[in-house]
This record gives sequence, structure tokens and C-alpha cells, in this order.
Amino acid sequence: MTRVRMHAILDGDDPSWGRTFAVAIQTIIVLSCVAIAIETLPDNPLWLDRGLLGFELVVVSIFTVEYVARVWSAPNRLRYVFSVFGVVDLLSILPTLLLVGYDLHALRALRLVRVLRLFKLVRYVKAFERLARAFRSVLAELVVFAGLASIVLFLCASAIYWFENEAQPEVFASIPHSMWWAVVTLTTVGYGDAYPVTAGGRIFTGVMLLIALGIIAVPTGLVASALSSERVREAEGDRERDGGRP
Amino acid sequence: MTRVRMHAILDGDDPSWGRTFAVAIQTIIVLSCVAIAIETLPDNPLWLDRGLLGFELVVVSIFTVEYVARVWSAPNRLRYVFSVFGVVDLLSILPTLLLVGYDLHALRALRLVRVLRLFKLVRYVKAFERLARAFRSVLAELVVFAGLASIVLFLCASAIYWFENEAQPEVFASIPHSMWWAVVTLTTVGYGDAYPVTAGGRIFTGVMLLIALGIIAVPTGLVASALSSERVREAEGDRERDGGRP
Amino acid sequence: MTRVRMHAILDGDDPSWGRTFAVAIQTIIVLSCVAIAIETLPDNPLWLDRGLLGFELVVVSIFTVEYVARVWSAPNRLRYVFSVFGVVDLLSILPTLLLVGYDLHALRALRLVRVLRLFKLVRYVKAFERLARAFRSVLAELVVFAGLASIVLFLCASAIYWFENEAQPEVFASIPHSMWWAVVTLTTVGYGDAYPVTAGGRIFTGVMLLIALGIIAVPTGLVASALSSERVREAEGDRERDGGRP
Amino acid sequence: MTRVRMHAILDGDDPSWGRTFAVAIQTIIVLSCVAIAIETLPDNPLWLDRGLLGFELVVVSIFTVEYVARVWSAPNRLRYVFSVFGVVDLLSILPTLLLVGYDLHALRALRLVRVLRLFKLVRYVKAFERLARAFRSVLAELVVFAGLASIVLFLCASAIYWFENEAQPEVFASIPHSMWWAVVTLTTVGYGDAYPVTAGGRIFTGVMLLIALGIIAVPTGLVASALSSERVREAEGDRERDGGRP
Repeated sequence: MTRVRMHAILDGDDPSWGRTFAVAIQTIIVLSCVAIAIETLPDNPLWLDRGLLGFELVVVSIFTVEYVARVWSAPNRLRYVFSVFGVVDLLSILPTLLLVGYDLHALRALRLVRVLRLFKLVRYVKAFERLARAFRSVLAELVVFAGLASIVLFLCASAIYWFENEAQPEVFASIPHSMWWAVVTLTTVGYGDAYPVTAGGRIFTGVMLLIALGIIAVPTGLVASALSSERVREAEGDRERDGGRP
Repeated sequence: MTRVRMHAILDGDDPSWGRTFAVAIQTIIVLSCVAIAIETLPDNPLWLDRGLLGFELVVVSIFTVEYVARVWSAPNRLRYVFSVFGVVDLLSILPTLLLVGYDLHALRALRLVRVLRLFKLVRYVKAFERLARAFRSVLAELVVFAGLASIVLFLCASAIYWFENEAQPEVFASIPHSMWWAVVTLTTVGYGDAYPVTAGGRIFTGVMLLIALGIIAVPTGLVASALSSERVREAEGDRERDGGRP
Repeated sequence: MTRVRMHAILDGDDPSWGRTFAVAIQTIIVLSCVAIAIETLPDNPLWLDRGLLGFELVVVSIFTVEYVARVWSAPNRLRYVFSVFGVVDLLSILPTLLLVGYDLHALRALRLVRVLRLFKLVRYVKAFERLARAFRSVLAELVVFAGLASIVLFLCASAIYWFENEAQPEVFASIPHSMWWAVVTLTTVGYGDAYPVTAGGRIFTGVMLLIALGIIAVPTGLVASALSSERVREAEGDRERDGGRP
Repeated sequence: MTRVRMHAILDGDDPSWGRTFAVAIQTIIVLSCVAIAIETLPDNPLWLDRGLLGFELVVVSIFTVEYVARVWSAPNRLRYVFSVFGVVDLLSILPTLLLVGYDLHALRALRLVRVLRLFKLVRYVKAFERLARAFRSVLAELVVFAGLASIVLFLCASAIYWFENEAQPEVFASIPHSMWWAVVTLTTVGYGDAYPVTAGGRIFTGVMLLIALGIIAVPTGLVASALSSERVREAEGDRERDGGRP
């Protein structure tokens, strides 16, 4: 098998094996992430833990072969190894390779790194590119709004700290503690673990919510409108290529 | 009465009886669902339970006659029986027919299947078609976003499990348990039954919310914009048919 | 003073007194609603309750004079009395007139009817008309979505009742009880007084939220887009009247 | 150094030092706000409190020098002192200058005023101007909706007070108390500290939520659409200036 043919198969472009290979790898990725999730369940019977470990070893073997094949067949090997996908492919196998022989429960954090193999899926989904383009086209606005959101959160946290600190010294213990309240409230999640009880704090919260929800909601609308104008542009491009009229 | 006339009445197309029949069936559907809801109330007096059972038997008799008439009058009988509406019509009567003579409280699940008769309403509402068309036109995007949402939920659940598992081993017992937190938080429902308490978990939650709300909100905007462009297209179609200029 | 002049003053059209009168009445409306709110506070000192009662009597006297003047000056008296504003004007004074001499605390419900005098404000705000027009232009869609929302709420309540009734017989006692959960969850309010605890109920809730949020969010987008197209139309109308080009 | 050159440096327009100075001041602003936040943490060790006090004194010295330089170099000194930025610059230094020598913990409120120095950042972010323009273009609508929102909140609070006051005299003690519930519910925050328990209150809440969410959500859409049309206008302006065709 030539390097060029191998590269085509791995990229899903090969006419006879490309599609089969892509579907197989995607299935393995999803199954292995389901296995990681089941692994974290408490009180798993021993046979299940053993089975999951076995499955993980099989998966990592496949991913290792895939990684080696990708490095071997890459037109520019160094460039692949240091590309985003190269790093993701390596991170998918490294934790298990490093942990072979160790007590798995001792290194929980390292094992969780394996969920990053979900990003291997991104390679196969063309639609992610459109999403990425839509995000990029509103990036400048999003950065400004992230800054604005941070300032608003900080000011709201300072104000509620001023109002509530005396009444609830545990919950609103400091400005950083109050930031948690500000995030949970301004995103309207509202867990109910922190809320104002003084009249001043409640009036401030009410006015703040009515004003700030507008500001938080703007980037949402921006992404949505950018994405739909992206679709219009693509549709027009298709029509022009066909030589037809809209 | 001919099969053709019967078919026209059942479809609501018959000039003299179609409309009356349609309104009558819709009223019966709504009333019978209200009856099912009342039936589930605890501590109903005996006379109410008996009355609801009697009403249910009357409703099922009517629906059975309707089903037989629909099968009899259908241009292609097999096709109707296996169509979506044919199955819905059958599911509306089957549970009660099967349960006659049994203690109703023993087969709660089967009795609840009866609420599916609400779907019989869909036949009469033209606007559902427009809604269905709008959904279909953004289906590809919605599938991509459903996939993206699943990946985001899984990654967020893994991260919060990493941060919170030690501090709250009951609530964040595993990645599947943490998925519940991720869904409730990212949809901003925020029941308050699970929330991070560690500094790391809270900072992660705050950053995650600000980023992810944008992604979750996009399909919403897509459906809304598709639906309104659908209205524009229909309005233009009407105008062209009238021979007028916009 | 002629009936015509009086009518002009009451409508705010009179060049010398119309504006003054309108501002005065609006101020009285807002102040009297604030007074009603303060009146409901528990543990008011006696002097405050007496002062609020005195203020209310003054307000009702003014509104009574206004009502009599409006009836007297109306071009068509019967039509005014039975118009929406005529009924609102009457409801603003009737409770207090009926309650004079009675112990106010015994008829709480009747006293609260007085907050309806807020609707007297609507007469003075031109922008409410634009809002009303925008709502009317999407009314058909909103009715369809209200119906769809009811069906979705009912089906979700039935499903969660099926999943959770055995685990939490108090909270999910029946389908009507579960409707409360469905409303609170699908609007993403999430008080935290009712939430699923079984695995089945939680998986259903997660899937339901991701699907249904789109449907609930659509009417919102419809009103917003209708309102902004309304603005565009008005702006174009203004330009055409000015004889200019857009 | 001339007054003109100093003014150019302070405004960030000076070719050699302007940019450096702007970045330095922005960094100091952000760091000093982080320091204020850390200062509020309970149980800080003594060395940290001392360090933060020292840092604050350094920051205030820099800001004082900046303020004096701005006053000195301003083309119209009085106008700068009484401009928004002049007041913000003064408020950034005044609390610390006044508090030197006093026990800082006694005057918490005054110390918190220092977070207003965040507004000094606004001077450097051009995008705030676009945001401000977008807000101004929908200001009239926002004011109307703020009024409408207040009326809706008041009416909802009155209704829930009527339904729930007897069942929960503590939580729904009065209309102002119920306003807190109305704000938390209609913004879908839903802390869970106040919710209806009677059947009437719950049915009212459900209907209210389905209707009112549309009204609350409208201003959001208005700001978003105004902001994106603002972008379109700017893009067109750029193209025309380039002499090209769109």
C-alpha cells in the first residue's frame, strides 16, 4: 500500500475504503467516550470494570495504529504532529499508554484527558467549518462583549457585595464570591444557592436584571444572524455556479 | 352513504357535514385528554372515577366507530392503516379496548398511552404543516447542533466531574450524573439540586455559561428566521397568484 | 366651559390645558398605585394606614370628577361608558366607593381591583398602539403556538408523571400537578420545587429541553421581527410623505 | 514637554508614547480592580492585606499624577474636570486619598467606590461608541418597554399577592414583596426562594409566563437588530469611502 493511498483512506477520500474507515473510526470514538462515562459510575461490578479496561486497550491499540499510519502517510510529517489534529490524536492515546501497569484510580485527572478524543470527530463534520466561519465573522464583537460582560459582572458583584455582605456574610463573603452570584443570576440560571434578602439588594437585582439581560443577549443574536447570512451567501454561491437565476 | 362521501366527511371536506364533524371530533379529543388528566388526580371520589370511566367508554366507542369508518372509506385501506394517522387512531382506542374488565390502576403505563390521541388534532390544523416545513428547512443545521450540543454537554460534564467529584461525591458521582447538571445549567433551568461549590468548578461554570449559551441559542434563532422567511414566501406566492405587484 | 373644550382637555388635545391635565392624571395614577402597594405591607403604623386611606379618598374624588366629566363631555355618552376605557375608568373608582364605611381588610380582593387603574395610563401612551399592531400582525401564529405549547406541556407532563410518580408521589401526584413542573421547566424558570430524580425522568427532561426550547422560543422571535418591520414601514411612510427618496 | 504633546500622550494619539501609555494605564486599571476584589476576601493573611494596601497607594499615586497631567494639559480645564471622564478620574483616586490614615475596614462603602475606576477603561475602547449608538437608536422603544415591563410586573405582583398571600403570608407578604417574585420569575431566573403553591397561583403563573416572556424578550431582539444594522451601515460607509461598489 502506498503512502498516498493510505493518506486518502485516512482522510476518507479513498473511493473504496475511505467511507467505511471514517464511519468505523467515528463509531469507535463515540463508543469509547460512552465507555469512559460508564467507567466513572460508582459501584461498578468488577467484571464491568475489567471489560471496560479491555475495551479501552483495544480502542487505544486502534488509535495508536491510526496515529502511526497518519504520521507515516502525512505529506509533511512534522507539520501533522504539531497540528491541532495531531495533538488531539496523540492526547487520545497518551494517557492510557502512560497508565498501563498503574492503579487507574490513582490518576483520575489523567484518565479524564481521554475525553478529548471527542475532538477527533470534528475532522469528519464539514458543518463545523461553517460554524467556525460564522463565529470568526463576529469574533471582534464577541471579544468586546466578553470584556463588557466581565466589567458588568464585576460591577454587579461589587454592588451586591455592598448590599448583602452584612446580612449574609457567608454567601456574599467577598467580591469574588459575589461574582458567582452575578454569573448565575445574569445568565438566568438561578440555582438558588445565593440570592439577595435585603430590600436594597433585591431592588438592585431587579433593575440590574432588566437592564443587563439585554446586553448579555446581544452576542447570541449576533451569532445567529451571522450564521443565517452565511447560509444565504452559500446558497447564492451555489446558484451562481449553476449559472441559473435566483 | 357512499364511501366517497364518508371519506369527505371524515376529512372535513364535505360541504354540509365536514365542518361539524371536524369540530365535534376536536372537542371530544380535548375533553377526553382533560378527563385522562383528572383521572390521575389522587383522592378522586368514587363517583368521579366512575363518571370518567363512563366518559372514556363513550369516547372510545366514538373513536372506534370513526376508525372503522376511516378504514372502510379509505381509497387505499392498507396504506391508511399503516400511515402515521392510522397508527395514532388505533393507539387512541387500543389501550381502553385491551383494559376492559381489568383493574385500571394495575396498568398505569398502558392507560397513559391514551394521551397520544392528542396527535389526532394535528390532522385538523393546517398551520402545523407550515411549522413542519420550517423545521425541515433547518433540519440539517439542527442535527449538527444536536451533535455539537451533545459533545459540549459531555465535555462540560467531564470537566465538572473532575472539579467537583471529590467535594460532592453524591451529586457529581460520575460523568452520567454530571450530564444532568450540564443539561440543567446550560439550558439555564437551574433547579438548584446540583451546583458547583469549589472555586475551580465555579470559575469553570461561569466561563462555560458565557461561551456555551451562544451555541445553545443558535438553533432557536435558526427556526425563528426560517419560519418568518416561510411567511414571506407564502405572502409573495399569494400576491403573484393575484396578479398584483408587491 | 363647553363640552367640546372639556373633551379636548380630557383627551390632552387642548392647547393650553391638555398637556398639563394629562401629566397630572398620569402622576396621580402612578402615585395611587404606589400607595396601594404600600398599603399591602404588613405592620404599617396606624398613621401611615390613615394617610394612605386619606390619599386614596382624594385620588378617587379626582377620578370620580374625571369620570363624570368624561361622561358629560363624550360625543356619544353610552359608547364611552361601555368602551374599554369607560369600564377601566369606572373600575378605578368603584371599589373604593363601594367600600366606604366598611372594614377595608375584610374585602382584600375588591381592594386589589383598584390596581386596574394602571390601564388608565394606556390612553396616554401612543407607543402602545404600535405594540398592539405588532402583536395583531402575528396573532394567528401566536394562537397556533399557544395551542402547540399546550399540547407539548400536556404530553411532557404525562411523560414525567409516568417516570416520576412512583419515586415522588407527592410532587408528581397527577398530570395536572406535573403540568406545573412542565411550565416551570420549559420556560427555564426552574424554581427547584419539582425536578426529576429517576434516571428515566432525567434523560427524558434533557432530551425534552433541547427539543422544546426551540419551539417555545419561536413566538418571541416572531413578535420581535414583526415589531422591527413595523418600524421600517413607519420610517418609509414618513420618508414618502416628505417627498424624499429613501 | 509641551501641553499639546502631553495631551496627545494621555489620549493615546502620540506616535512614540501614546500606545505604550494607553496599554500601561489599562493594565493598571484591571490589576487594581483585581486587587480590590482580593482585598474583600475574608481571612486574608496580614502580609497580603499590607501588600494590597501598598499596591493601592502606588496605583493611586499613578492615577493622581495622571489626573493632574490631564487637568494641566486639557485645552479647556474646567470642561475636563466636569466631564464624565473627569469625574470618573477623580472618583478613582478620591476614596483612597480621603481614607489615608483611617482604619480602612470602617469605611467599606467608600472603599467600594473605587471599583468605578473600571469606567476609565471605556475611554480606550472604540467599540463602546458603536454599542452606545445602537442603544441610543432604540432608546425610545426601550423606555416604552421599561414602562410596560414595570406595569406588567406590578400587575403580576398584585395578582400573585391575591392568590398566595393567605397560603404563604411570609413570602408574599405584600405587593412590594411579590414584586421580587415577579422579577425573579419573569426574567426566568427562578431562585426558588418564592414560588406559588396554590392551584390558582400556579395556573396564573403558567399563563403569565407563556404570555409575558414574549413581551420581556422584545427589547433584546431590538438591540440585536439595531446593532447588526449599525454594522451594515458602517460597512457600507467604508465601501463608499473606498470609491468601490458594494
